[in-house]
Amino acid sequence: MKENSNDFVKEIPKKSENISDWYTAVILKGELADYSPVRGCMVIRPYGFAIWEGIQNHLNKEFARTGHKNAYFPLFIPESFLKKEAEHVEGFAPQVALVTKGGGEVLSEPLVVRPTSESIICSMYSKWIRSYRDLPVLINQWCNVVRWEKSTRLFLRSMEFLWQEGHTAHRTAEDAEAETLQMLDIYNKFAQDVLAVPMLCGRKTEGEKFAGAHHTYTIEALMPDGQALQSGTSHNLGQHFAEAFDIKFLDADNIERYVYQTSWGISTRIMGAIIMTHGDDRGLAFPPAIAPTQIVIVPIFYGEDKTAVLDKAYELKKNLSAKYRVEIDDRDGFKPGWKFNEWEMKGVPLRIELGPKDLEKNQVTISSRIGQGKKQVSLDEIEGKMDGILQEIQDEFLARALQYRDTHIFNAANADEILKHMEEGRKGFYKTVWCGSEECADGLADATKTTPRCISMDEESSGKCAYCGKESEQILYFARAY
Amino acid sequence: MKENSNDFVKEIPKKSENISDWYTAVILKGELADYSPVRGCMVIRPYGFAIWEGIQNHLNKEFARTGHKNAYFPLFIPESFLKKEAEHVEGFAPQVALVTKGGGEVLSEPLVVRPTSESIICSMYSKWIRSYRDLPVLINQWCNVVRWEKSTRLFLRSMEFLWQEGHTAHRTAEDAEAETLQMLDIYNKFAQDVLAVPMLCGRKTEGEKFAGAHHTYTIEALMPDGQALQSGTSHNLGQHFAEAFDIKFLDADNIERYVYQTSWGISTRIMGAIIMTHGDDRGLAFPPAIAPTQIVIVPIFYGEDKTAVLDKAYELKKNLSAKYRVEIDDRDGFKPGWKFNEWEMKGVPLRIELGPKDLEKNQVTISSRIGQGKKQVSLDEIEGKMDGILQEIQDEFLARALQYRDTHIFNAANADEILKHMEEGRKGFYKTVWCGSEECADGLADATKTTPRCISMDEESSGKCAYCGKESEQILYFARAY
Repeated sequence: MKENSNDFVKEIPKKSENISDWYTAVILKGELADYSPVRGCMVIRPYGFAIWEGIQNHLNKEFARTGHKNAYFPLFIPESFLKKEAEHVEGFAPQVALVTKGGGEVLSEPLVVRPTSESIICSMYSKWIRSYRDLPVLINQWCNVVRWEKSTRLFLRSMEFLWQEGHTAHRTAEDAEAETLQMLDIYNKFAQDVLAVPMLCGRKTEGEKFAGAHHTYTIEALMPDGQALQSGTSHNLGQHFAEAFDIKFLDADNIERYVYQTSWGISTRIMGAIIMTHGDDRGLAFPPAIAPTQIVIVPIFYGEDKTAVLDKAYELKKNLSAKYRVEIDDRDGFKPGWKFNEWEMKGVPLRIELGPKDLEKNQVTISSRIGQGKKQVSLDEIEGKMDGILQEIQDEFLARALQYRDTHIFNAANADEILKHMEEGRKGFYKTVWCGSEECADGLADATKTTPRCISMDEESSGKCAYCGKESEQILYFARAY
Repeated sequence: MKENSNDFVKEIPKKSENISDWYTAVILKGELADYSPVRGCMVIRPYGFAIWEGIQNHLNKEFARTGHKNAYFPLFIPESFLKKEAEHVEGFAPQVALVTKGGGEVLSEPLVVRPTSESIICSMYSKWIRSYRDLPVLINQWCNVVRWEKSTRLFLRSMEFLWQEGHTAHRTAEDAEAETLQMLDIYNKFAQDVLAVPMLCGRKTEGEKFAGAHHTYTIEALMPDGQALQSGTSHNLGQHFAEAFDIKFLDADNIERYVYQTSWGISTRIMGAIIMTHGDDRGLAFPPAIAPTQIVIVPIFYGEDKTAVLDKAYELKKNLSAKYRVEIDDRDGFKPGWKFNEWEMKGVPLRIELGPKDLEKNQVTISSRIGQGKKQVSLDEIEGKMDGILQEIQDEFLARALQYRDTHIFNAANADEILKHMEEGRKGFYKTVWCGSEECADGLADATKTTPRCISMDEESSGKCAYCGKESEQILYFARAY
């Protein structure tokens, strides 16, 4: 930790006044990430990478529970492979980085640095899958991908990013659809329960779906500036790639059929959602389930009391560390208030103070990063109560985020109503009735400078399409988006 | 699993007759990895990737225990960065893959796909490190790297491979040397205790050290064909990179000094060492500590006994799965002997058979992948005894590997003696007295078509240099190598 990091706190712009500068400042000053000398590529520092490791641990458990296994496919893809699926190449070709030289020689065919791995993985599946007994194939990969971007932002949009990409092959269309929805549900619950970032779930319109997909489902977070952030997607690929890459299997009735496929991914982008959703003017704030450090112990010592306080603080750290991610701030020469500010800036959800008076009363003083006031807990009880204390803070994080999300969904009967919401400062998701035509989705988006975010899967309405006026029961959400 | 995989077993060449073909066959047929459409790039399949995940889990625990944290640095490095350290660029420039186009445009400066990350990481350290209070910096990264190779082999030498690279910065030369040796020791113990692959540890000669290092330590395994396999390295970088990248800190005495650095890495190459060390004519064989599947339960059922046997087998699987990696082979239509062969080919260290007669006697029949005969264990005791059973098998794996290694170290007083060993079929490490000069190391290597593998750190001898005849106490091991 830099000695001057407390000065950094003063430099953090107010979130409510300039969320963009605030966002960059808390990431740099909280040492989550840094700019690298390569344009558009970021460095994820240990404190930030610990969050990504937490995401990996949680999702790996869910993937394993649902029968998926991890594997690794090559970074490089022959340029010709990308071209096999027509929509796919159209979507990704403008964004690729090309290796044209290797070992001092010009390559006969340039290699694409993977922007996503459907094509290379499909080429292997066509070799591995022979019989219906080989299905389903349920594979996931954690890796880096590269998409050439004009303008980039830490975590939210970087040229290289880390992600997981699941790629599955199934015997029937029904199996593939069930898999697509299962993974969407895993993403949605993970975001809500672990990251405390509530999502709007739904299907993408044709214009917004993944290049090469049959259809795409998405989880969409709402940022504090009222903009949506696409945070994870689950694609039903149908037989598009199976046909392009000739992935056939001999079915039980001795007829050769193409497999049905899915792919689904979550990237380091979601870390941007965590940061923006929970942080405040004092800096970062992390819900306990994903916080790199869950608990910071700050012993408060003066003169001769020092040893007794420190001994007890070390003992507490040792005991809590068996189950929780704990730091102790035992640095000399810094006042408690200074330390409090610093750990608040770093977003640690629970602080435990232990001073001479606490020790006398056999207690500690605890406070939540986002709650009000302090509370005393007996030293004998603190370990036993810790699960409950952290859960309470986690619930508080989620309640706050839900409250924001739910009060920022605005009904709109047409484009004018969306524009009026915007003019009057009501930024968020605009909920419309939609007839289902791409023209209406595009028309409304153009008229309001928003994008269609997702078609609701679990709500029905009855009314008139916000663009053409045709009767419909379908709901489509619009928003400005990152 | 392919239905025809048992036919594969028949196709595996004998290890003793053609280790090279055997090696490729067991990897492909055991579904550890596969060739990809990109020359020199491999696909690591789920069964093989589970071994890599095991390696990651074990090493991450050791890295954390010794204070290291994981982070992530960019895949791309500006070409000019590689050139800052003179020896470094000389070592890596011929091997790099270059990105020359991105987003449809030609780049003004080509980007190197990282062959190793010293240069990009040092550029960040020069920004982050200011004061002696910032030291040590102890960071590790798990990632993919690319080195353009002319000829490649699955796991042993591939154009893209996965590895971890630790990069640390220290206040003093002593701290850096202590770190370098600590990581070597972690690698050595990990290889021996977890992988059951005993290593020869030592320092590299000048000619064999890492490009840019002050000096390099290595762990060297001995393969069954008598060739050495470098399996992990730990570099003391001295101040070479600190000077090239201007990584200075203000010391406590208010004087600016360059940091001392280390780097160290283990890659997917070590999976080749595991496969080659332990496999045999029947296929793969994995020591329990790293086996993707530790235990396979094969219920043996005929006619009406089926339900009772299967129920008990499922119950056993459920109970053992809480602590161990267990599979059950309940497939219909395959004879027990066929299943046994298949799981032996896959290298599972412990098989548990459970048939009607076992059930009658409330017992199971167990056998080790590399041991002789079968043993009965009471069903009531199998769980309680499992730690011990697996440890015994692990010990057996190690004892066998140690026995091989220790009987394949041959003393040689000069080049002729090495050549004589070779002629008479004694392939392995050749142990020589060495005066310490690079000329003698090179001379002996050229004369015997071997390479100097490592300078012993813990043994002393007294004798004459095997090349120039000068009196010395230093020991240098030679071998042919992968």
